[in-house]
Amino acid sequence: MIPASNISGLDSPDFLIEETSFDRASIATNGCKFMIGNGRMGVRGTLEEFSKEQLAACTLAGVYDQLPGKWREPVNAPNPFYVRAFHEGVLLSAESLQPVSHRQWIDMRTARHGRETVFRLDGGLEVSIKAVRFLSAAETHAGVMRYSIEASRDCELVIEAGIDGDVWDLNGPHLGDFAASEQDGVLVLGARTHEQGRALAVGVAYEETLPAGNTRPAEIAARATSITRRVTVRARAGAAYSFSGYISFFCDTENAAARVVECCRGSLATGCDAMFAAHCDVWDGRWRRSDVEIDGDPGAQLALRHGIYQLLIVAPSHTDRVSIPARGLSGQVYKGGVFWDTEIFMLPFFTHTQPETARRLLSYRSHTLDGARRKAADLGFRGAFYAWESQETGDDACTYFNVTDVFTGRPLRTYFRDKQVHVSADVAVAIWNYYRQTGDTEFIVEGGAEVILECARFFLSRACIDPDTGRHEIRDVVGPDEYHERVDNNAFTNAMVAATLRIAIDTLELMRNHDARALATLVARLDYANDARRLGEMAARLYRPSPSPDSGVIEQFDGYHRMEDASLVEVTKRVIQPSEYWGATHGVAANTKIIKQADVVLMLHLFRDEFSEDVKRANWEYYEPRTEHGSSLSPCVYALVAADIGKTDWAYRYFLKTATIDLTGDSKQYVGPLYIGGTHPAANGGAWMAAVLGFGGLRVCDGFVRLDPVLPEGWESLAFSFCARGDWFRARITRGGISVTADAANRAGVEFRFAGGAGAVCAPGATLSTDVLS
Amino acid sequence: MIPASNISGLDSPDFLIEETSFDRASIATNGCKFMIGNGRMGVRGTLEEFSKEQLAACTLAGVYDQLPGKWREPVNAPNPFYVRAFHEGVLLSAESLQPVSHRQWIDMRTARHGRETVFRLDGGLEVSIKAVRFLSAAETHAGVMRYSIEASRDCELVIEAGIDGDVWDLNGPHLGDFAASEQDGVLVLGARTHEQGRALAVGVAYEETLPAGNTRPAEIAARATSITRRVTVRARAGAAYSFSGYISFFCDTENAAARVVECCRGSLATGCDAMFAAHCDVWDGRWRRSDVEIDGDPGAQLALRHGIYQLLIVAPSHTDRVSIPARGLSGQVYKGGVFWDTEIFMLPFFTHTQPETARRLLSYRSHTLDGARRKAADLGFRGAFYAWESQETGDDACTYFNVTDVFTGRPLRTYFRDKQVHVSADVAVAIWNYYRQTGDTEFIVEGGAEVILECARFFLSRACIDPDTGRHEIRDVVGPDEYHERVDNNAFTNAMVAATLRIAIDTLELMRNHDARALATLVARLDYANDARRLGEMAARLYRPSPSPDSGVIEQFDGYHRMEDASLVEVTKRVIQPSEYWGATHGVAANTKIIKQADVVLMLHLFRDEFSEDVKRANWEYYEPRTEHGSSLSPCVYALVAADIGKTDWAYRYFLKTATIDLTGDSKQYVGPLYIGGTHPAANGGAWMAAVLGFGGLRVCDGFVRLDPVLPEGWESLAFSFCARGDWFRARITRGGISVTADAANRAGVEFRFAGGAGAVCAPGATLSTDVLS
Repeated sequence: MIPASNISGLDSPDFLIEETSFDRASIATNGCKFMIGNGRMGVRGTLEEFSKEQLAACTLAGVYDQLPGKWREPVNAPNPFYVRAFHEGVLLSAESLQPVSHRQWIDMRTARHGRETVFRLDGGLEVSIKAVRFLSAAETHAGVMRYSIEASRDCELVIEAGIDGDVWDLNGPHLGDFAASEQDGVLVLGARTHEQGRALAVGVAYEETLPAGNTRPAEIAARATSITRRVTVRARAGAAYSFSGYISFFCDTENAAARVVECCRGSLATGCDAMFAAHCDVWDGRWRRSDVEIDGDPGAQLALRHGIYQLLIVAPSHTDRVSIPARGLSGQVYKGGVFWDTEIFMLPFFTHTQPETARRLLSYRSHTLDGARRKAADLGFRGAFYAWESQETGDDACTYFNVTDVFTGRPLRTYFRDKQVHVSADVAVAIWNYYRQTGDTEFIVEGGAEVILECARFFLSRACIDPDTGRHEIRDVVGPDEYHERVDNNAFTNAMVAATLRIAIDTLELMRNHDARALATLVARLDYANDARRLGEMAARLYRPSPSPDSGVIEQFDGYHRMEDASLVEVTKRVIQPSEYWGATHGVAANTKIIKQADVVLMLHLFRDEFSEDVKRANWEYYEPRTEHGSSLSPCVYALVAADIGKTDWAYRYFLKTATIDLTGDSKQYVGPLYIGGTHPAANGGAWMAAVLGFGGLRVCDGFVRLDPVLPEGWESLAFSFCARGDWFRARITRGGISVTADAANRAGVEFRFAGGAGAVCAPGATLSTDVLS
Repeated sequence: MIPASNISGLDSPDFLIEETSFDRASIATNGCKFMIGNGRMGVRGTLEEFSKEQLAACTLAGVYDQLPGKWREPVNAPNPFYVRAFHEGVLLSAESLQPVSHRQWIDMRTARHGRETVFRLDGGLEVSIKAVRFLSAAETHAGVMRYSIEASRDCELVIEAGIDGDVWDLNGPHLGDFAASEQDGVLVLGARTHEQGRALAVGVAYEETLPAGNTRPAEIAARATSITRRVTVRARAGAAYSFSGYISFFCDTENAAARVVECCRGSLATGCDAMFAAHCDVWDGRWRRSDVEIDGDPGAQLALRHGIYQLLIVAPSHTDRVSIPARGLSGQVYKGGVFWDTEIFMLPFFTHTQPETARRLLSYRSHTLDGARRKAADLGFRGAFYAWESQETGDDACTYFNVTDVFTGRPLRTYFRDKQVHVSADVAVAIWNYYRQTGDTEFIVEGGAEVILECARFFLSRACIDPDTGRHEIRDVVGPDEYHERVDNNAFTNAMVAATLRIAIDTLELMRNHDARALATLVARLDYANDARRLGEMAARLYRPSPSPDSGVIEQFDGYHRMEDASLVEVTKRVIQPSEYWGATHGVAANTKIIKQADVVLMLHLFRDEFSEDVKRANWEYYEPRTEHGSSLSPCVYALVAADIGKTDWAYRYFLKTATIDLTGDSKQYVGPLYIGGTHPAANGGAWMAAVLGFGGLRVCDGFVRLDPVLPEGWESLAFSFCARGDWFRARITRGGISVTADAANRAGVEFRFAGGAGAVCAPGATLSTDVLS
């Protein structure tokens, strides 16, 4: 892949997402679909003239603020991509003036956003605006925009460009103490957060690249929450007026304004093309590792790429102190909280294609371990109970009243925070899976082990013992299916807890072999000797609901089978208000068998070696019609298990539902009166999993790699790269067979098993093929 | 006390409850206030011309029916006290014609209902109606009424009297297959219940006692659900036309109609005066044992007597297969269910004054043990989990959705049925208290022991063990305060469970000493040897929340102190609809510290020897302002503990609130859209407890009896009879001292301890006095 030669060029249609008309109703969806980002900041795909009313947002990763009595949530920085053009006092906005032509796009290969819009004004004057922008992947404090305006006949245009600090907030305003200035040709807007007084500054320096006509001297206007530069252009017919904007943002840095000025000046000196080239270099490397190529299904190809793109723009490359929130960097929804989404739905993608990022995401959990300890202690338990909605400290941003009742306007007591204990198991299992697939023993030693042991310890104290049988149980929990609260022995949760206990035992063993002294130090520091002895007993005695001898169905939790077996259609009919919550003890689903999302079926995916195909089929078929998919995490799981049991058509349907989520905007937008729109990185990760782990059948096992592919109808080939325990491979699956090519730099040969067949070793630089597929 | 010389006479104003005007709004309240009953049937205090619209009801004890999809509830029998008088086609009804004078009364001493009403019709004609009725306490299948009508000038009156089968039903109709007939001068209406086809028949035979003027021959009219006898009277000015009605009812008897005819004929032969005399004999005996005399406070005196009366009219004397429902026999409210109300709130009254009845009530639990076993097994436990709302089989009539949401009209999942486990402990503790206070070892051997052991076994299986500490806990329960659902370690529940375990151990010991062979047989039959060994361990390890070292306050359940500490005023302000339910996870109280009823404070009463006065005071003062008293069970408990800690003014206030409940009608009438009005026997029992156990300070202990009285301001004396381990005493407390007189028939002297002083023995027939009181 060769990147576009310059910031405005477009040469990769396979990576292009575009809209070719303007629809006011799509503003929010497009804000998500056309996002750009560099892990440090996300910029919603809104037009340059848009502001908070159109949900414009530059969301900062890992910067949170809380106003008294309101929800704690990420901070949206002042928007430095803000440009408004006027003709005779009329704002040229796609929202207020229906454009005669309009195109909005992202080039995913280079992570650029662009738009071209033509407005027709009174008297037939046509004015066209073109703009492109990116947030640098090479210098993550910087971004560049390019703006160009042209009129169909001579006229005077006013261009107001600058930094808009009047930002969109759900529970704001989060910024105060605004300070606007021009320093060394750079517009700077500084501000502070309310809760912690965290200083941030945003800057932009403009460079005219194509001055047209007579331009009156720029006027700088510093207002309460903005600073802009106003230029009046005597435009000549057909001659564009263009400028570049070099933007920068800093937070939590001493003298952030000075750093911003320095960064903008540096970008100016580097110049747009060089900035862009460095940015493209990074993205080229990313795609080389992470792209998945599908031949024969352009729609699926584009959707899957979009998902991968969305993951890559929000993943942190600059720090291991943040992780990926459930709505990425697309705004403040879900409080910018990091959920189990990252570990269970996104991490496989990163582990297999960007392992350094996977390590960073898991390091975030290691850094927030004390928050998880505080939460456990606060609830009377030992060990680490990770936050349901984790922010920078690991303390839980999820409130005990997280949903508002639409009928009374009252907050509903929900149990996401205190009962969804599987989150600690999700973290432990994810760390162990990362370790097994990367061989990164250092990460275990340097922090992973402590997290695993503390999570296991939490379950030692969270369990209870049935006095009649001595059976250990996990009661009073919420499983992935949040519509059923406070249940006992959720099959998924118990399976995850059992895994955590085994992993803790394996971790102790690993450390013993690897660095016995480090282990001794850790055990002493954690006072873990006694708990270490208890792990095996609890693992042996922990109850796990098993498949019914008759039907093979695993009961989701004790008593699930007593719930009303109303159909999804019937339950949907009972809904009185479209946005009412289906759970929370009395919701329409709460006392039926209708579940929010994959629960038992997720267990079948995560522990797929433990269950027979018959059991997987029985449970998939039982739970599938009873699943509302009220969570974007659900369809990919049904796709994965469907692929596993040979239901390729169903797998494809669910894959497509997952992969298109941020293209169609077809997802739940409200729970009660609460806006929950935004991007869906977990579904994006799920789309990758469905494609590579599901259809590709990739499994990195201990000592070998499996590929058991099934191709959906119409797919001619599926190709992807992946990393297995530090070595890189590229797989290509066609209807004729499988081939795997090992990177020449690999350290040694790796055994592959194709489609259930015997193993063969793929040496560095070699290609291994099979034609067993029909 | 000498009973009234005849059915119409009134000579005991101290036992008279009356209303001297008619108010349509009081019809429902008066229906409860003026009830009569004989344990087999309750007849609401409605006027003779009233029917189902005015909530007339003859509620049968222990006869239940259920229509598909509706609640199972008691059957209201056809009403044989039905009389309507017409003048020129106008019905003489207090509801439709405002009477010129009206009086309604009950004479509690003889359990009679009466009314006198004068109507003024067009042209100044005045017609007066007098009626009296009772349900025989001597022959519980029989009742008698006396009806008299008189006009101020000559006129024609039509009297339609008979049996009204078009009865008031909440979830009916429960009766079908009506068969109306006249047999041997007796009007008979037979019917069958729907669910089980239980046959019942109601009859009435009339006897004219004062025929006035020319009476046209009676016409019998048998309609679909009624049979009446129509008499046209040419009334002469000032001359009464009167008749007696001899009623009878049978259920579940072969040939019920024939039995009814036989009974009515027998009553006719016996005659009204003899019937009444036999009835009064029984009531005379009841009052001799159960009356409590208060000098100096006529209002309190009358209210307390009314409570005692209400208990005596609903208590079964004919069978040990029924107990007293939570709303007595005042209708179908609460499904006619027997709650813990009986054991904890009513039983002390019966144990101390009508021990045969107490035994009957507890035998009901023994007879319904299998229902309790079924319930435990159904929920996955062993032993006996008694029904929250128990009917004739002991199966639980309480539904899982027992309250309807007023905002959505949807059923709310409530946890009364499956989580209010204390009911099994209530039964066990009540049996043991009965045994300790009566010495009735036979009852233990003949059934009580089995109940106790099975209840203890339930808790052995219902507990869970904390794996960190080995502590036994009772998690996921609802305590008496039903506004807080699914809590862990409710202090009251854990205390009751601990008591049950100790009682089970004591029961085994008692039986071992009393009848080792019976014990061996029982243990073998119940396969109890292993459980018997486990009782002590669980009793030793069971967690009981203890008073805070700082404040002395006992936390009601784990996490109660984290609830919002909103005031009752504030929480009340949040109510949107007056009848909305305050509990059920999201109700206005559910997440605050506001509690429905005495919970910790009830524990302080039941286990008053275990807690210091400081702890009792701290908890009373802490919980009192946080208690809504949304249950009629609550105020008496606050009265009892207030008396215990010397807050006599508060005790009096709460006593009066309890004692007047069925006089004022001042209680909750609706939960959601559900009518819950009716009588309140638990509060009636609570009023007796507050008076005798609270102010009287009576405690029958092992080996001695204590009297630690405190008299409310204005009370000159308090006198009551009581039974202690089979011997009878009369106590009289004045401001000057205490005196106790032992019945001459007592078997031996009994030690008394007055006001904390040393003991003295009261020999049979002797009187013991002290003047220690100020």
